[in-house]
Amino acid sequence: MKFGRPRGTRDFLPPEMRIRRSILDKVRQVFEQHGFEEMDTPAMELWEVLSTKGGDDVERQIYKFQDKGERWLGLRFDLTVPLARVVAGTPDLVKPFKRYNISKVWRYEEPQGGRFREFLQADIDIVGSSRMEADMECVSTAVDALKELGLEDFEVKMNDRKLLEGMVESLDIKERFGNSVFRALDKLEKIGEEGTMKDLAEMGLDEVTVEKITGFTRLKGEEALEYASSQFGSSKMTLDGIAELRRLAELSDSFGLSNLRIDFSLVRGLDYYTGPVFEVKAGGVQVGSVAGGGRYDGLIEKFGGPPTPATGISLGIERLYEVLFERVRNEMKPTRIEVFVANVNEGVALDAIRLSQELLRRGVAAEPDLMGRKLGRQLEYANSKRIPYVLVVGPDELKTKKFKLKDMVGNREIVAGLDQVVNIAKGQINE
Amino acid sequence: MKFGRPRGTRDFLPPEMRIRRSILDKVRQVFEQHGFEEMDTPAMELWEVLSTKGGDDVERQIYKFQDKGERWLGLRFDLTVPLARVVAGTPDLVKPFKRYNISKVWRYEEPQGGRFREFLQADIDIVGSSRMEADMECVSTAVDALKELGLEDFEVKMNDRKLLEGMVESLDIKERFGNSVFRALDKLEKIGEEGTMKDLAEMGLDEVTVEKITGFTRLKGEEALEYASSQFGSSKMTLDGIAELRRLAELSDSFGLSNLRIDFSLVRGLDYYTGPVFEVKAGGVQVGSVAGGGRYDGLIEKFGGPPTPATGISLGIERLYEVLFERVRNEMKPTRIEVFVANVNEGVALDAIRLSQELLRRGVAAEPDLMGRKLGRQLEYANSKRIPYVLVVGPDELKTKKFKLKDMVGNREIVAGLDQVVNIAKGQINE
Repeated sequence: MKFGRPRGTRDFLPPEMRIRRSILDKVRQVFEQHGFEEMDTPAMELWEVLSTKGGDDVERQIYKFQDKGERWLGLRFDLTVPLARVVAGTPDLVKPFKRYNISKVWRYEEPQGGRFREFLQADIDIVGSSRMEADMECVSTAVDALKELGLEDFEVKMNDRKLLEGMVESLDIKERFGNSVFRALDKLEKIGEEGTMKDLAEMGLDEVTVEKITGFTRLKGEEALEYASSQFGSSKMTLDGIAELRRLAELSDSFGLSNLRIDFSLVRGLDYYTGPVFEVKAGGVQVGSVAGGGRYDGLIEKFGGPPTPATGISLGIERLYEVLFERVRNEMKPTRIEVFVANVNEGVALDAIRLSQELLRRGVAAEPDLMGRKLGRQLEYANSKRIPYVLVVGPDELKTKKFKLKDMVGNREIVAGLDQVVNIAKGQINE
Repeated sequence: MKFGRPRGTRDFLPPEMRIRRSILDKVRQVFEQHGFEEMDTPAMELWEVLSTKGGDDVERQIYKFQDKGERWLGLRFDLTVPLARVVAGTPDLVKPFKRYNISKVWRYEEPQGGRFREFLQADIDIVGSSRMEADMECVSTAVDALKELGLEDFEVKMNDRKLLEGMVESLDIKERFGNSVFRALDKLEKIGEEGTMKDLAEMGLDEVTVEKITGFTRLKGEEALEYASSQFGSSKMTLDGIAELRRLAELSDSFGLSNLRIDFSLVRGLDYYTGPVFEVKAGGVQVGSVAGGGRYDGLIEKFGGPPTPATGISLGIERLYEVLFERVRNEMKPTRIEVFVANVNEGVALDAIRLSQELLRRGVAAEPDLMGRKLGRQLEYANSKRIPYVLVVGPDELKTKKFKLKDMVGNREIVAGLDQVVNIAKGQINE
């Protein structure tokens, strides 16, 4: 009997895992370069923590269970809730607190193309600054990470939740329709303007209101801001949102972001956003964004902390893994091992092991045979693992201290002393 | 209201996480150098997988829950079970399959000194080789990883389960007393010989048998092997175990392991071991071992695979973290950021951001102010984060392109162009 895995989960065998690790290492490196520091929290949280952020949809997706002490726990469904819990409980953190976390989260969703029940998130967040500089720093860091992965032609879409709030406030539809309007706008890109207008009308909005809203979504940039100011300016929220977006545009150049676009239909599902929201698209990556986030100034207070501004962005690691898979694989060496140390027979097997250890001590990734195989089979193994060099050890070689070094890629063979082998394997000299 | 964490779990804020990461990176690097490749599996497994390995103790410790489809799942309690599942389901893996995995596991235990409900394991395993070379390769890699962490004076304790099996077989007490005898021996180091003799007597063994067993545990090395051969040699298992231990001793020198000791009281709790078992102690680390493992040739078959030999070792990462904490902290730079780019006032804040971006592009880890703070507060921040250099940006500096660079460690200040700043920050020239 064979055993399976829970639905929506994956095993990553070494060939896949190397590609994932390569992506994660690059991302991590850029995060750290920008001053984000790693934090880690448990995979499981108390139920009262997970349910604090609210949102029925999310709660339904949580893996929930009782421990043996009958306490209710759940697996974390994102990395923001644990961050908020920690910050709320650690008031003496130096601000701004710039943290990253690249970890697994779990959601019970229907598994489908590119959607899993266990998946990685890569989040950076800045806690303690209400300035737009913090938002831009997050976006700029995310874009630098994407560049490091070889992507280019970025487009950063920006909106501000305050503007959306101000709009429904000034239209006096906040209480009755607020969230449904946001949800309808969220679908704009997917279902088109006509579909959205139909949705808005169907929820009971009059024609003038529907036109005011969709008329706004047609405009871009400064034009959209002026429209918002004239149509929805009766709400202070609108004006605050406009000011934030103007500041973001002003900052973008200094942060090296050229292609910033204000897009009023950008909502982003999660209800806890309170200010700028952003998404990054990359050239050649169809469908959806490769990073997204926003400001959530109210969340840490919900977890019992003092009012604390915060903003963050999440890289779509699973998307990136899918998109970059082939490219990264072609760029990588097929194995870390540089030299396979083969023995011509069992009589010199210990010597081969000893030489392999000697190579390791000298910084060369080396391995000996561990299977008691004949030379031919050893070479087959080295070949199947695509190890670049095979050092052949026999009685004569041990006497003369000159070894056959097979270049498995160039399909050649030279005779070399151990020093030379080390240099060749390290790529410091050519053969 | 503040929120807590599940008992026995920990948050790692950046100062702690950097130390953990440094340890993990070194370990990972050595594993890869030796040709072990990373594999990853889900945090959760089907219940039938987790309960296959058996052992009531372990089963009671598993976090068990139903998903929304009412399927029983659990969090993995080790990394060996997932490995066995994957290998059983992937018959075409190139052998030997050398994999590592450094990941979290979960056990519902009473939290106490150094024992947690969520903790890291760092495992290397070699699947597909029945040769003792594979066992030694695991031990030697583990020792190299421990060396890389700065530990020294290792002692490797070895025993062989076949020898233990052969002993109870030849004494004709296998069926009735086998496991209890092993459990009693496992406690020998803790409770001493007298306590063990008492335990053995209390379970109903006669005096002669108790004396035969404990007489054996008093002997070391070759003497012990000869004793075993003469006393328990009627069982083929004994002879096989002796042969394996002799081969391990013979291999140890070639693998660079000098301090190998056969210790008959070494049992290791888990019941699935079938051959050599080993533990590594390090100088200066009191109480218990820093690595341990053994051969488990029967496990993959249990998971539905063909009969497949396998052996592995696990580094005690949480032990090592505890033991190495101070040392690693003292060796590490306090922050990755090399230059904080301060602005003298809001009027040049955008320029400071731009310069910070320029430094990043040139490979210097840099950050600007994100809080709209006055210069004094910016310097305080840089100081509290122990950032080594602060670049001060003002209107004059922007005109002359010469900046004040404060050396926060040396408490000095120089005037430098951007090229020079880059070189100083990278440590390529002195000021």
